[in-house]
Amino acid sequence: MSKVLVFGHQNPDTDAIGAAIAFSYLQNQLGVNAEPVALGTPSEETQFALDYFKLEAPRVITSIKEEQADVMLVDHNEFQQSVVDIAEATILAVVDHHRIANFETANPLYYRAEPVGCTSTIILKLFKENQIEIPKEIAGIMLSAIISDTLLFKSPTSTEADQLAAKELVEISGVDLEAYGLDMLKAGTNLSDKPAEVLLDLDAKSFPMGEASVRIAQVNTVDLNEVMDRQAELETAMQTEIATNGYDLFVLVVTDILNSNSELLIAGERKEQVEQAFGVKLENNRAFLQGVVSRKKQVVPQLTEVFN
Amino acid sequence: MSKVLVFGHQNPDTDAIGAAIAFSYLQNQLGVNAEPVALGTPSEETQFALDYFKLEAPRVITSIKEEQADVMLVDHNEFQQSVVDIAEATILAVVDHHRIANFETANPLYYRAEPVGCTSTIILKLFKENQIEIPKEIAGIMLSAIISDTLLFKSPTSTEADQLAAKELVEISGVDLEAYGLDMLKAGTNLSDKPAEVLLDLDAKSFPMGEASVRIAQVNTVDLNEVMDRQAELETAMQTEIATNGYDLFVLVVTDILNSNSELLIAGERKEQVEQAFGVKLENNRAFLQGVVSRKKQVVPQLTEVFN
Repeated sequence: MSKVLVFGHQNPDTDAIGAAIAFSYLQNQLGVNAEPVALGTPSEETQFALDYFKLEAPRVITSIKEEQADVMLVDHNEFQQSVVDIAEATILAVVDHHRIANFETANPLYYRAEPVGCTSTIILKLFKENQIEIPKEIAGIMLSAIISDTLLFKSPTSTEADQLAAKELVEISGVDLEAYGLDMLKAGTNLSDKPAEVLLDLDAKSFPMGEASVRIAQVNTVDLNEVMDRQAELETAMQTEIATNGYDLFVLVVTDILNSNSELLIAGERKEQVEQAFGVKLENNRAFLQGVVSRKKQVVPQLTEVFN
Repeated sequence: MSKVLVFGHQNPDTDAIGAAIAFSYLQNQLGVNAEPVALGTPSEETQFALDYFKLEAPRVITSIKEEQADVMLVDHNEFQQSVVDIAEATILAVVDHHRIANFETANPLYYRAEPVGCTSTIILKLFKENQIEIPKEIAGIMLSAIISDTLLFKSPTSTEADQLAAKELVEISGVDLEAYGLDMLKAGTNLSDKPAEVLLDLDAKSFPMGEASVRIAQVNTVDLNEVMDRQAELETAMQTEIATNGYDLFVLVVTDILNSNSELLIAGERKEQVEQAFGVKLENNRAFLQGVVSRKKQVVPQLTEVFN
């Protein structure tokens, strides 16, 4: 049987890695020769989860041309967030929880999307539909993905389905949800030893919006000031990224995971659109957004509407 | 609760209508204020099935602007096959069994696609997952959709899942599968009383292929000659459609449902591509394709490859 690679988006977060591991395992049990891979190395948050559940980080690929494999995508569908030569691949399946855009196939495929907080919540359903038992460590990484994507259920992207899924996965993995969850999230907030360009790339996605190309990076912290003290260094790195990649706008969302607020730092030519999207006045290229923690629900749609 | 319209593709076939009725009924049971509608009137085949199971034909809509409703799509996703102003609608859900192309949303949605022969096969799964009982007449129209899409399981698009679904639906609806199925398919082959332009529009879809716009119409018959005797009239009508709509190629697939073969009739500028796609030599703009009955599996991919 031909080989299948399962992977999440570029700049993988815990769901991109965890969903790839879990969905690949499920496919193996269904008789498919699947391998989880990743489009980047794990973040410190993800590595914390992998270490905790004694899982290997998936092999990193940068192209599928040499792999001689069909692909299954998890936690993304937009081609610009996927492997560089995705358009030439045969996509057999997608499991995702994002909008669908810039995605197409030549043939019918298996596509499973639901508007829930985390891909792993959907993958838990798939395990149950196929009556496949979930090993403890796979349940652990799926639980970690849900904690990560929902910020321990504080994000507005979190749904009842995510909470119910987490409850089931807690039982299988045997961890203390609150204690483990906060430890894992905090492991991802160790930003001080990272150069600005690394920090900007930890969890960054590009979005075509109208005629513009918008880059939106997000970092989690337990101390907004610790990040904002480095504003000058961050702005220089954002300008370099804009010059290199032709972005019209670079938005850095710095999210306080303890108090569930975010501060924006902006670079690029479209600052008035940011002010319009969020109903704020930028001061020194910054704005505080009360209660904003979700890029998907509280940043991307608002900006998209202004650009369209 | 706001209203939701559920509909299939333009030039609706029995699956487009049947899946809309069935999925809308399922949504109603789940508490959604859904109404099945259609982007055209039922074909004679579909009307035969509706009459048999005493169901009303869905209301025909031509635009959603005035409807003040969100939408759920069945049996299609490509915008050019949908309602004319689909790009302005909020798409809450899609249930489909085709390739994904020319489709995008601003927000996460429910998307359920599987590479099976019929949308109604997937909808049966959804009834079971939600533990909703299927009324006799809904099972009947779903069964009719499966018979129609798979040509009584003779099409290469037919899968084991479709056969198993049909078996379950036979039990609920209580019909004789073979006898009812053949009667229904034959009801759709009454072509002699239809003007050429009506015949070309019974089951026609447009496909962007490379730079070209390709129109592919399909009609079912129990006598290929009866249709081909009208070649001159059909060619004139195809040329008119090309001139009106700017198609680069018009392919009419006339399918013999008793012997599972098709004859092509071609109009437009790209005839050499047709010869290349199917490895045939056109004679008098016609070619006989042994064993070809499925537009989706045996016509569209072959043409797409040549145009790309």
